Amino acid sequence: MDITALLTSAGINIAICVVLLSLYSVLRKQPSNGCVYFTQRLVSEPVKYSDPFCLERLVPSASWIMRVWQATDEDILAVGGVDAVVFMRIVVFSIRVFIIAAMICIFLVLPVNYYGQDMQHKQINAESLEVFTIGNVKEGSKWLWTHCLALYIISCSACVLLYFEYKSITKMRLAHITGSPPSPSHFTVLVRGIPWSPDHSYSDSVEKFFSTYYPASYVSHQMVYQAGTIDKLMERPAAFVFFRTRYAAVIAAQVLQSSNPMLWVTQLAPEPHDVYWSNLSIPYKQVWLRKIATLLGAIVFMLVFLVPVTFVQGLTQLDQLSHTFPFLKGILKQKYMNHLVTGYLPSVILILFLYAVPPTMMLFSAMEGNVSRSERKRSACIKILYFTIWNVFFVNVLSGSVISQLSVFSSVRDIPIQLAKAVPAQATFFTTYVLSSGWASLSCEVIQLFALLCNVFRKFILRIKEEPSNCALTFPHHTEIPRLLLFGLLGFTCSIMAPLILPFLLVYFFLAFLVYRNQILHVYVSKYESGGQFWPIVHNTTIFSLVLTQIIALGVFGIKRSPIASGFTIPLIFFTVLFNEYCRQRFSPVFKRSPAQVLIEMDRQDERWGTIEEIYNQLRSAYCQYPSISPDLSTAGNTSHHEDKESSQDPESLTPGNQLVKLNE
Amino acid sequence: MDITALLTSAGINIAICVVLLSLYSVLRKQPSNGCVYFTQRLVSEPVKYSDPFCLERLVPSASWIMRVWQATDEDILAVGGVDAVVFMRIVVFSIRVFIIAAMICIFLVLPVNYYGQDMQHKQINAESLEVFTIGNVKEGSKWLWTHCLALYIISCSACVLLYFEYKSITKMRLAHITGSPPSPSHFTVLVRGIPWSPDHSYSDSVEKFFSTYYPASYVSHQMVYQAGTIDKLMERPAAFVFFRTRYAAVIAAQVLQSSNPMLWVTQLAPEPHDVYWSNLSIPYKQVWLRKIATLLGAIVFMLVFLVPVTFVQGLTQLDQLSHTFPFLKGILKQKYMNHLVTGYLPSVILILFLYAVPPTMMLFSAMEGNVSRSERKRSACIKILYFTIWNVFFVNVLSGSVISQLSVFSSVRDIPIQLAKAVPAQATFFTTYVLSSGWASLSCEVIQLFALLCNVFRKFILRIKEEPSNCALTFPHHTEIPRLLLFGLLGFTCSIMAPLILPFLLVYFFLAFLVYRNQILHVYVSKYESGGQFWPIVHNTTIFSLVLTQIIALGVFGIKRSPIASGFTIPLIFFTVLFNEYCRQRFSPVFKRSPAQVLIEMDRQDERWGTIEEIYNQLRSAYCQYPSISPDLSTAGNTSHHEDKESSQDPESLTPGNQLVKLNE
Repeated sequence: MDITALLTSAGINIAICVVLLSLYSVLRKQPSNGCVYFTQRLVSEPVKYSDPFCLERLVPSASWIMRVWQATDEDILAVGGVDAVVFMRIVVFSIRVFIIAAMICIFLVLPVNYYGQDMQHKQINAESLEVFTIGNVKEGSKWLWTHCLALYIISCSACVLLYFEYKSITKMRLAHITGSPPSPSHFTVLVRGIPWSPDHSYSDSVEKFFSTYYPASYVSHQMVYQAGTIDKLMERPAAFVFFRTRYAAVIAAQVLQSSNPMLWVTQLAPEPHDVYWSNLSIPYKQVWLRKIATLLGAIVFMLVFLVPVTFVQGLTQLDQLSHTFPFLKGILKQKYMNHLVTGYLPSVILILFLYAVPPTMMLFSAMEGNVSRSERKRSACIKILYFTIWNVFFVNVLSGSVISQLSVFSSVRDIPIQLAKAVPAQATFFTTYVLSSGWASLSCEVIQLFALLCNVFRKFILRIKEEPSNCALTFPHHTEIPRLLLFGLLGFTCSIMAPLILPFLLVYFFLAFLVYRNQILHVYVSKYESGGQFWPIVHNTTIFSLVLTQIIALGVFGIKRSPIASGFTIPLIFFTVLFNEYCRQRFSPVFKRSPAQVLIEMDRQDERWGTIEEIYNQLRSAYCQYPSISPDLSTAGNTSHHEDKESSQDPESLTPGNQLVKLNE
Repeated sequence: MDITALLTSAGINIAICVVLLSLYSVLRKQPSNGCVYFTQRLVSEPVKYSDPFCLERLVPSASWIMRVWQATDEDILAVGGVDAVVFMRIVVFSIRVFIIAAMICIFLVLPVNYYGQDMQHKQINAESLEVFTIGNVKEGSKWLWTHCLALYIISCSACVLLYFEYKSITKMRLAHITGSPPSPSHFTVLVRGIPWSPDHSYSDSVEKFFSTYYPASYVSHQMVYQAGTIDKLMERPAAFVFFRTRYAAVIAAQVLQSSNPMLWVTQLAPEPHDVYWSNLSIPYKQVWLRKIATLLGAIVFMLVFLVPVTFVQGLTQLDQLSHTFPFLKGILKQKYMNHLVTGYLPSVILILFLYAVPPTMMLFSAMEGNVSRSERKRSACIKILYFTIWNVFFVNVLSGSVISQLSVFSSVRDIPIQLAKAVPAQATFFTTYVLSSGWASLSCEVIQLFALLCNVFRKFILRIKEEPSNCALTFPHHTEIPRLLLFGLLGFTCSIMAPLILPFLLVYFFLAFLVYRNQILHVYVSKYESGGQFWPIVHNTTIFSLVLTQIIALGVFGIKRSPIASGFTIPLIFFTVLFNEYCRQRFSPVFKRSPAQVLIEMDRQDERWGTIEEIYNQLRSAYCQYPSISPDLSTAGNTSHHEDKESSQDPESLTPGNQLVKLNE
């Protein structure tokens, strides 16, 4: 692939982006699309209908970008909660670190790569992209210190930025805990594995156990019932137990209750909206088996997915393709076709296949037995992350470079060397991947194609006038975080090997900043809150990316016979791992358990202000499994119970506005 | 090596064992050796001096074996505590499982191996040992189902036995918790990372923090002081905090106290005798760094140890040795010399080198920052276990088979195949290792050579009449558990490959049963108690051994082209791992945390019986760092503080009897 092919790809993608963003700026002005692009406001504050038709409505404009730009972090926090702010911090962190990386790599590393060998350079636009990678630097070059220096600068700045992010997010999480109004979930513990006894009902057992061992703090409890109508009042060993103080609830949740660890299993209850009711009726004894089964299922899925990826990768190696399918030779000889096939088609195919992944992983996470939606999402996020890094990064790198042989992982010791050979060679593919998957996916995200089509179908074909009752979606953290982290991984690993990827990546992150902010402010609603629990995943993955980059660099310096650069890289790996361990010790416990000091202070404040009675009254009605029991929360309980099929979208209902929002801001 | 060489080795070892055990039976009758062989009784119940000289004292006898045999598990529990019983359970488990293995392997597998190929068999005593291994079975043999069946029977019986052991040990641990008299450690929490404040002393900070957040249950506290005489009253951020109930202490120990997880770090305090005072003054912030540093140190030590092991392994391959050192050719041609060098010398050299390992690992564990002796011992136990399995098993297997090449671990996928090739070939070495290291080490253990020599030196050269004040040793779990587990690993992996090892191994375990029981009953004292916390290590290692055996069998069946046997082995691996996961869920939490239910019941019992006041009085004097503060526990505090050098023996003082025990039972 040469510069022209890259520019073709960039051109196509820029055009698509511009068209889609312009289309978006027009579509969002149409009042009929209110429930697609302004769900957030539609839910929170129903505004009067106002629809004076004017030409302005058909002219694309960039005013939405200005408005998104002007929004502050406080706005995001108010609308999307801590999770939304944490998500935006990932984008901001990526922008910062890749600006530094781009500066150092474009101005220092790129010239060294380009002039790395005594050769006759072609015209710049006909120059192969490989001339810009580290592959062009000759063995034993004295200029490899620039790569080592760049690696040091990138690693150190990433670690420093990560440290401050972790610190501020920990602070934000604590502020979220202390600042949030008393919620039923703070006082509630979910108990599973209630032992069966022939003399008592489960409810009696719970009452007896907690009034015996927690006489001072136990308030009451509420059983979980089996799904379905006939056995509504049956035989389920799970309950919500309410406590007098937050601290008592946390203690009851953390302490091992019984001498049989499979009985009286306690954990803090999820928020009422967050409860995944159908999983509550799973016997606790099954949970560990389900976890293993889904783990195996996910691994099998990851491996089976190799088939399309390997095929896609074949497309970038045209010689081989036309060798395997001789009838394609004629077509592939056309220059434009060649650019299209090598530069664009592989990414598109890959993306289409990747669309099947999130629902599958979400299904696995639901089967796993998670009792809350946020937990299920986090579990799916981790699965998708592993999946993406394995299938997009490793399989592409390894199958791309050694496509003709199957024994990719036969050799452990050679992995750094093999990666070092493969990553620069695959940099071209990754650059086009950023262009197509990255840029285009953001445009698709902003335009909400699926919701838009549904809306059009409803309004203009079925001619339903009133707004749908459950159009509000929660933010898809589980698909978007792995995506951002994958691009981070690509950026780190390619930075000193093939710096040309960095400008495209920066454009991606800037665009992501605008698009995701817009979506958080206008489209997605936050129904439940994990309090920033995604950040440790992000932190660990970034450290993984850094260490992988360093290992690859080690391999490259080995191939290029630069013992000094290799020697300097080893302590860098060691210190990066050490830094990670420090952060794990210093920050991560706060993301697993709430500090006693904070909870006790909050309990005392409640007591002082006399808000405690109010909370007790709330407790009894908060966790409502069936609509008939408590009508005020019926919709949530009802829909959340019956929407297992559509596990990726979570269309829980929220009171929708009866009138349309004013759209022409 | 042939049968004759093996019998030579066995003969030497049997002779050594008989001589040493006879010598022991004589030496133990000498009253002057009372402090070597009856330390236990010397400490607990001083009996009147009675020494009528008679000839009987010089005649070897087996009466001690009878007495050991007649002792019950209750005796062991009373004398050595739960840890001693758990240790004996390892031996009993091994005897049971290897009796089953020996039955099935000797009567079913061994004939199949022996007649595995159409060959002319030599006289049985000149037959090479390799004829008895699976290496003798021809490829594609129809008889490999016997090996697969044996593997199934061994794995299933091991799992069933493990399950019942884990269950009964869990029960024993709970009975130990509920049955033990109120101990100060139940009510005490160790606090580290007390934040420094310019206005308050550390003591004031502790008082303020716990009386604010635990007003109902906080009793008092006691600061930890810096070691040394000058700064005795200094500036240390650690303290013991005493609580009103066991439950309150457990809660304070388990809950995250502060929003900075490096401050106010709590854990249940170790028993007073168990406290490792010098490590208490380590700032908590250093602990994670120390852990990493010692981990690295231990890994480096493990790798450097390769040098002597590789050399030792060379000795079993005589051809190569005489090729490298031609001057040895003459000596090695002598038949007896040949037997000695191949059958005995390698093990002896290896054992000598292995003697350096426990003190080193104990030193690492002390540097790690463990706050109690039992924790330090457990940490050292794990290190020595990894070390032994790596250096005795893996390095021998891999360097023995591929001694000429260094790229042992270049290939991941081939590991099962490589192990499958190597283990049967190394079975001979392992058999002699069981004979020499196993049998001889037990004889050495019973005779207590080092203590005996010290005693002789004191009594007959220095002519000191009174008994030494600190001759009591605690049981060396950290060296003996890894040894037993290593022999278990050898037994499992060799069982179906080379069944000839099993009878020797069974003799080892029977002997171990007698010797360790004797030592627990008569020699070692138990000063602190981990409550059976060694068992999860034993369980996990046994599962590892089983899975490794199954993987090796998979490799062997692959080499022998028996797809059916391979096919049956894969589900076996899966179910073994699943079984382990079940045990981890079902039993292991009880070994990490005490169940609330049990503690609350105990607290209520204390209240009912009015023993609570008595405990509070004990609390204030129990944790005494310096002898001057509380004279009644001075010796313990004093010696435990100054014996850091001799980390492997722990010669803490205990009140010794003034008179000698009656020895001629």
